[in-house]
Amino acid sequence: MSGRLFVIGLGPGNPGQITPEASAAATEAEFFFGYGPYVDRLNLRPDQTRIASDNREEISRANAALEKAAEGASVAVVSGGDPGVFAMAAAVCEAIEAGPAEWRDIELTVIPGVTAMLAVAARIGAPLGHDFCAISLSDNLKPWNLIVKRLEAAASAGFVIALYNPISKSRPWQLGKAFETLRAILPGTTPVIFGRAAGRPDERIEITPLAAARAEQADMATCVMIGSPETRIIERDGQRPLVYTPRFSAEAAQ
Amino acid sequence: MSGRLFVIGLGPGNPGQITPEASAAATEAEFFFGYGPYVDRLNLRPDQTRIASDNREEISRANAALEKAAEGASVAVVSGGDPGVFAMAAAVCEAIEAGPAEWRDIELTVIPGVTAMLAVAARIGAPLGHDFCAISLSDNLKPWNLIVKRLEAAASAGFVIALYNPISKSRPWQLGKAFETLRAILPGTTPVIFGRAAGRPDERIEITPLAAARAEQADMATCVMIGSPETRIIERDGQRPLVYTPRFSAEAAQ
Repeated sequence: MSGRLFVIGLGPGNPGQITPEASAAATEAEFFFGYGPYVDRLNLRPDQTRIASDNREEISRANAALEKAAEGASVAVVSGGDPGVFAMAAAVCEAIEAGPAEWRDIELTVIPGVTAMLAVAARIGAPLGHDFCAISLSDNLKPWNLIVKRLEAAASAGFVIALYNPISKSRPWQLGKAFETLRAILPGTTPVIFGRAAGRPDERIEITPLAAARAEQADMATCVMIGSPETRIIERDGQRPLVYTPRFSAEAAQ
Repeated sequence: MSGRLFVIGLGPGNPGQITPEASAAATEAEFFFGYGPYVDRLNLRPDQTRIASDNREEISRANAALEKAAEGASVAVVSGGDPGVFAMAAAVCEAIEAGPAEWRDIELTVIPGVTAMLAVAARIGAPLGHDFCAISLSDNLKPWNLIVKRLEAAASAGFVIALYNPISKSRPWQLGKAFETLRAILPGTTPVIFGRAAGRPDERIEITPLAAARAEQADMATCVMIGSPETRIIERDGQRPLVYTPRFSAEAAQ
């Protein structure tokens, strides 16, 4: 008797950015697994059950949710942003592949959401208007030298770079090292955007030239974006500047 | 007398994926500029004005919308997906920078949406679960050799690659060349996802090994995703396979 598993993306935290599809799935599910602050964004009914866990326990959370769904229940795993971007969808797939065969019979529905870099970009203009990449700066799941290799490849090839998981108590030095790596390749004037809580009342967005960017400007809820050499700033009177990357590029490949 | 300009992302086309924030902005605006099929997704009232234009006329559309907003009107520019990803937000910023000084006084609000790669990824599992990049394959706005350089850099560094604007009548050969470029770097077994109209009634999603991927599998409404060497496929009885890229990577940088 296989149940149903929704993996729901709630967007960056502004209720106006939760899709109707995500809200409908949250109405249907009986059991909710997720990092506490994400689950708390939903107004669960008394007949719905909240099973919150720490942000770092992704695989055990995925396993618990799949077990419950395999019993026949309607289960939701809740992510902030988009569940497919450095979030729970991959963890659920990993658990399905490693788990008992009957988990493959569960009806799995992933519901996309507005991921952090899109929400931050929208608040500042269009920094992702040209080719871009997204890199998780966490070296818990991959070697640090691979992250450095990717930063170098992306900056050298002219991608705008969005960094997820830029810093945490247990990973205090990585973002500073990433800025060092990028300063060796990109002009010091390249805009760096620190976007925290985009679209929420406690939003904080800073624009800093790469030469002056400091790791302390970010916390774990910040999405950090580093422009390409073509990213531009438009100053405005009485309004925040616009940061954007033009759709065109005149740069010849080397 | 400066008006207001919304740049609204409507998501990939499923009404359940339009955010409440986007719907609210569409209620407020008086004039709607955009590619006809996108504007037609909104149920405009008789007092709202539709100004549709061809998909390729982005700068003239941005200019027309800014002119109208500068007259004091409440104006919306409508994009499919997310307006910040290969869509109208960058064109509007370009037009503001090149335009008359008073355009900088317009209150600009960009409203993010679910971009195509997130919607396609959700329908197939979690192919973007690890570091990834997004590249527009259109060489209308940048030289083809720069696109090749970026494909090579991204594939060599282990990024999953999402291709926007993969093919059109006037750009028939670029996607085939892109596959050739990637076949020289990635294993032939690397999964390629052709995702069209994700979440809509006419959805079509195909998974093909890179060795067998053909440009004819895509049209201009398709988002093409190429996995990394770590992307995996989980076969399931009676359901579409899951394609995902694990959060972890054991690969050492070279």
